[in-house]
Amino acid sequence: MGTPEEAERVVRDLCDAFAKHDAEALRPFFNDDVIYHNIPMDPNVGIDASIAFIDGFFAMCDSMTIETTHLAVWNNVVLTERIDTFTVGEVVAPLPVMGTFEIRDGKISAWRDYFDMAQITKAWSGES
Amino acid sequence: MGTPEEAERVVRDLCDAFAKHDAEALRPFFNDDVIYHNIPMDPNVGIDASIAFIDGFFAMCDSMTIETTHLAVWNNVVLTERIDTFTVGEVVAPLPVMGTFEIRDGKISAWRDYFDMAQITKAWSGES
Repeated sequence: MGTPEEAERVVRDLCDAFAKHDAEALRPFFNDDVIYHNIPMDPNVGIDASIAFIDGFFAMCDSMTIETTHLAVWNNVVLTERIDTFTVGEVVAPLPVMGTFEIRDGKISAWRDYFDMAQITKAWSGES
Repeated sequence: MGTPEEAERVVRDLCDAFAKHDAEALRPFFNDDVIYHNIPMDPNVGIDASIAFIDGFFAMCDSMTIETTHLAVWNNVVLTERIDTFTVGEVVAPLPVMGTFEIRDGKISAWRDYFDMAQITKAWSGES
């Protein structure tokens, strides 16, 4: 098992890599059996389903950047509080999110994000 | 500033105290200027508004218990992943939640909970 510092580094590097807007560039961060679960939605099971979901997501927005406001590690589990900002044309939508990452062998084996679905739907439509 | 262990203890004790179903019993855990923010809703500013909110919440359910599945501390900030279970008559609704707690002088000065509002509304109404 890696160190807490290594677990933190994987998560921070993944978050930074979202700015590339290239789902395949994120593949090296995940274990093959990763479960990526946006809690209000169905979980994505496995690396292919997870990358496909992110790819579909990137297709719907011009950019997504992740700012981590708080991060804490316990063993191989990394908990984050974040502002994920989506840009779609003129709309810039900062979404408050918390997420849990479980790390195995230096890669992410589980990712669960918690947010209010109505908040993202509303922001996406350009309502304030 | 207290230790990370003390910060963790305050949060775990608060979570356990929810089982008492008595909002006033939670008052000793909060600083007077606490901001308690359920992210999908407006923030409660100050201890009186926060206790009043919890009191109103307790009035709507028979019990609320908090199970912390993951917890990590960074300095005075405690990040949690939890299952908050509400019981209303026959309905037992486990809600997946993440929450951030900021600790000052041994008490909570900020609490932000992240969850999907539709999920709680649906569960509360007895839909699965």
